[in-house]
Amino acid sequence: MSLTDEQKEEIKNQRSNSLPSKRAISPGMEETLFLVHEILDHGFIRVIDYMGNDASIVQAARVSYGEGTKKSRDDKGLIRYLMRHWHSTPFEMCEIKFHIKLPVFVARQWIRHRTANVNEYSARYSILDKEFYIPEPQNLASQSSVNNQGRGEILEEEEASKVIETLKNDSIRCYDNYEEMLSQNNKKGLARELARMNLPMNIYTQWYWKTDLHNLFNFLRLRNDKHAQYEIRVYAEKICQITKSWVPLAYGAFEEYQLGNQHLSASGVLALRRVLRGENVTQENSAMGKREWIEFCQIIGKES
Amino acid sequence: MSLTDEQKEEIKNQRSNSLPSKRAISPGMEETLFLVHEILDHGFIRVIDYMGNDASIVQAARVSYGEGTKKSRDDKGLIRYLMRHWHSTPFEMCEIKFHIKLPVFVARQWIRHRTANVNEYSARYSILDKEFYIPEPQNLASQSSVNNQGRGEILEEEEASKVIETLKNDSIRCYDNYEEMLSQNNKKGLARELARMNLPMNIYTQWYWKTDLHNLFNFLRLRNDKHAQYEIRVYAEKICQITKSWVPLAYGAFEEYQLGNQHLSASGVLALRRVLRGENVTQENSAMGKREWIEFCQIIGKES
Amino acid sequence: MSLTDEQKEEIKNQRSNSLPSKRAISPGMEETLFLVHEILDHGFIRVIDYMGNDASIVQAARVSYGEGTKKSRDDKGLIRYLMRHWHSTPFEMCEIKFHIKLPVFVARQWIRHRTANVNEYSARYSILDKEFYIPEPQNLASQSSVNNQGRGEILEEEEASKVIETLKNDSIRCYDNYEEMLSQNNKKGLARELARMNLPMNIYTQWYWKTDLHNLFNFLRLRNDKHAQYEIRVYAEKICQITKSWVPLAYGAFEEYQLGNQHLSASGVLALRRVLRGENVTQENSAMGKREWIEFCQIIGKES
Amino acid sequence: MSLTDEQKEEIKNQRSNSLPSKRAISPGMEETLFLVHEILDHGFIRVIDYMGNDASIVQAARVSYGEGTKKSRDDKGLIRYLMRHWHSTPFEMCEIKFHIKLPVFVARQWIRHRTANVNEYSARYSILDKEFYIPEPQNLASQSSVNNQGRGEILEEEEASKVIETLKNDSIRCYDNYEEMLSQNNKKGLARELARMNLPMNIYTQWYWKTDLHNLFNFLRLRNDKHAQYEIRVYAEKICQITKSWVPLAYGAFEEYQLGNQHLSASGVLALRRVLRGENVTQENSAMGKREWIEFCQIIGKES
Repeated sequence: MSLTDEQKEEIKNQRSNSLPSKRAISPGMEETLFLVHEILDHGFIRVIDYMGNDASIVQAARVSYGEGTKKSRDDKGLIRYLMRHWHSTPFEMCEIKFHIKLPVFVARQWIRHRTANVNEYSARYSILDKEFYIPEPQNLASQSSVNNQGRGEILEEEEASKVIETLKNDSIRCYDNYEEMLSQNNKKGLARELARMNLPMNIYTQWYWKTDLHNLFNFLRLRNDKHAQYEIRVYAEKICQITKSWVPLAYGAFEEYQLGNQHLSASGVLALRRVLRGENVTQENSAMGKREWIEFCQIIGKES
Repeated sequence: MSLTDEQKEEIKNQRSNSLPSKRAISPGMEETLFLVHEILDHGFIRVIDYMGNDASIVQAARVSYGEGTKKSRDDKGLIRYLMRHWHSTPFEMCEIKFHIKLPVFVARQWIRHRTANVNEYSARYSILDKEFYIPEPQNLASQSSVNNQGRGEILEEEEASKVIETLKNDSIRCYDNYEEMLSQNNKKGLARELARMNLPMNIYTQWYWKTDLHNLFNFLRLRNDKHAQYEIRVYAEKICQITKSWVPLAYGAFEEYQLGNQHLSASGVLALRRVLRGENVTQENSAMGKREWIEFCQIIGKES
Repeated sequence: MSLTDEQKEEIKNQRSNSLPSKRAISPGMEETLFLVHEILDHGFIRVIDYMGNDASIVQAARVSYGEGTKKSRDDKGLIRYLMRHWHSTPFEMCEIKFHIKLPVFVARQWIRHRTANVNEYSARYSILDKEFYIPEPQNLASQSSVNNQGRGEILEEEEASKVIETLKNDSIRCYDNYEEMLSQNNKKGLARELARMNLPMNIYTQWYWKTDLHNLFNFLRLRNDKHAQYEIRVYAEKICQITKSWVPLAYGAFEEYQLGNQHLSASGVLALRRVLRGENVTQENSAMGKREWIEFCQIIGKES
Repeated sequence: MSLTDEQKEEIKNQRSNSLPSKRAISPGMEETLFLVHEILDHGFIRVIDYMGNDASIVQAARVSYGEGTKKSRDDKGLIRYLMRHWHSTPFEMCEIKFHIKLPVFVARQWIRHRTANVNEYSARYSILDKEFYIPEPQNLASQSSVNNQGRGEILEEEEASKVIETLKNDSIRCYDNYEEMLSQNNKKGLARELARMNLPMNIYTQWYWKTDLHNLFNFLRLRNDKHAQYEIRVYAEKICQITKSWVPLAYGAFEEYQLGNQHLSASGVLALRRVLRGENVTQENSAMGKREWIEFCQIIGKES
């Protein structure tokens, strides 16, 4: 990824511009504010603004006149209680705004999270930059043979090279033709809103994306997950780090109860109790389907 | 309204606690942050936190690396353009959080605005304070004879006194019985979640309410309106003042295009053009209903 | 609850009026359509309309031209898979609309579910009926001593009688004064939007409430739960029955994975594996808090 | 657009399958249900399901036990009143579900309407069809010289031919390489979730899209508008026709107050009154900007 000198200058100005404010502050967040965190080959994520901190969650849960509880130990207990018992509204009282650069096919997954505010760079209004996502060879995987929407083994060197070659060539050709269609060398030049349709979905776009902490956790639970596509998961992983520095107590509760937790179905609970009573429980006598049984065995650390 | 000394102390602490931050700041908002603005007899509204300022709207509309346009004159033009053409997403990039104390019957109207985050003081968990809204005589109006959901003339002194007496007596009696049912003088004491059902809807509740600027404008357009009930309109009016000090350019555009504007229906446009051509336009030959015709005449400043 | 003869007639008309339609149909739902299911002393719930059935979920998940899979066995497997893996969007493709009569304090909890469409009977426009929720003695519980927002033991007979007496008297007195304030015997009569503030929160209101199946399940998971207040839980229980007759496969999956399931926190998973390895796991060496430990023991069927 | 024989057969089956239902019915909608309405070169829109009709709006506004008002004349008046006064919740009580095939760059605009339910055909799970949007020559416009995000004149024949040639060639080449990367002739074959990034944004996708009537009107107001891009406007125009056949009274009110209406800003209202008093009003003495002035003159039918 390469920022122009002007962009670097603007970011530097933002970071150097500090003013006194009475608002709730997060020291971890102030550190990272405006900084560009590079993702993939040309993408990035950076925090533009935030509202609230761990104490704000407590304050809202208590509808306080002041700052919530006095002791951070009590804050931690209350935040974990709220997270464990699905009391989601206090987490909605924190808000974060990102500036994100990402490939269009990733943006198309991302936008499905509807409870967020978005302003995307307009390809009706502006000309997009010539930047495309070309995966690293180690991220070029074959179709999974067991999961219809997942990846299997890494491609071998020769096949990977060919794929990369193809992606590069098609990106460049499509972009050059996009530019050519827009140009006005003695011609009218095609409208931008039309020319953009020639661009492939690995081109980068950018947007401002703003959401509250509860909905951010929903996003992270689904996207920082082994079933999520690698190219969105790397964004989610970085947001996890950022969120941890912003609201460490809430993030700790999220890790404990939502990222690292496990669900047992009604049948799974019954099967577990039978296992604990020493019974010989098998898929056949458990009322679980084949895949569920495998997942159940993984949870309890048993061979399936 | 009477805050306890402890509450006053907490608010004072919040206001004196200023820290450097890199975030976008609104000088007008910093002035008002945490301050209690009294509304009705025991209600209030105060800002707990905010995100963004006028420049943030421009910055999001441009998906900028830096702070948006260089000149505030350009900011004003762009913000007015966005407002005029229903480009609402940049306004969603500003967020505000209030602490509000309000009568339950007002809260029941307010909550209908769904695109907001709310934490209400829990009457399952806590005992409500003995505070009820008792209108001033000049706000005791009779049922309107023309508008089925509005107010007409002010009650006369004697009738008003009697109404106030009734409201006071019933409030006090219901509250005393609420307390009595909760009490445990040699008894078990009724659960709070049950006892609360004896309270009348003029009792005060409180909540934290957070929304974005676009949805705040929707709220203000509907509630700072002559058809809105007086008891919610006074809150909306105060929020208008606060919003003006927060984002003066956006608020100016809102006043121009949403608060002070007028709609002409398809028939209204045709009628107007006929008027301008000097034709004699009447309700009968205008294709408008009776009420629409009256509204149309008001817009163009003509007797109906 | 007592419907007027006119209301009974209207409902009878609705139920007798059957027309051919090409839309997806649910036989179970057609049976219950428009029928009044009584809840509490004056409340009810009835289905006014619905969209979709189990096959619609499959059809949307597959973005089908026709009706989804051919065999209902495959439908069941797919629906369970979607539910287990949080693929919530296909469930959003079914929609239901209720007409509900409920006490105001219940309505205030209910409305917190924001992703729904609501039209409430307007007390600005109309005069409310004289109907109040007065609990049965067996539902009059004391404040819980362990759960700050729950109920404990049932009140004893004498105390219960007194509570019921109080609730009745205050309801009647407040309502009579409401009517008196509205009346116009040689007076102006107070506006309805003001007079309503004298009514207690056990008065009944009504609304049309419409939501999609995914958000309905969210509502049911939270409200058909032992921690939910009894007075809203009885509505949720009835809706569970109705939903089962509407979309039996989706409801079955909901029971298996959301109503009857259990969550293990990250610490809970570790503790469980240690238990299964035969280790002596206690609260102290489990990294769980006291309450979490009790919940953990309940899940695995162990004494805490 | 070409449906397979199997798809045609499935649609025929859906249309022939009629069952008695007690639900509110719309005769106009039953006619069009499941039918494919072709849009652009390979796109379509078809209604899969609907809930409610004009009477449902009235019924919800009145929170009726039966079907609303008795006379359709009263229904019309009430629906127009609701639309004129921004009472949007009764319109939310009607719901519609579409199956839509559309180019990806159109889908990316469409998805910005967040208050809707969507299931999109998954390119992680399935292989996309070889169908691309190639504009007709008369829709190939140059960039507008006055509107940064709009179209100007139509391209001349030669330039248009070249653009079409380019779009076709790049689409085919990108698709062929997509297929080649997926293939497994003695190779592993790239995962579908990766290969799709080589496809250009004029490829067609499909989804199920469900929304309520109020939000549908919001969509139509913005997308059936001269500022909307042609390729989404053609979908909006077709939906307008469909909606008219579904809820003719509501659609009539929408046309009168939202599609055909005009807004006057606060300054516009003042200027209009001055014009009507015979004053010589110009842009300079009107407090309006240049563009606003032009728009104002268009509304009142005056030369600017």
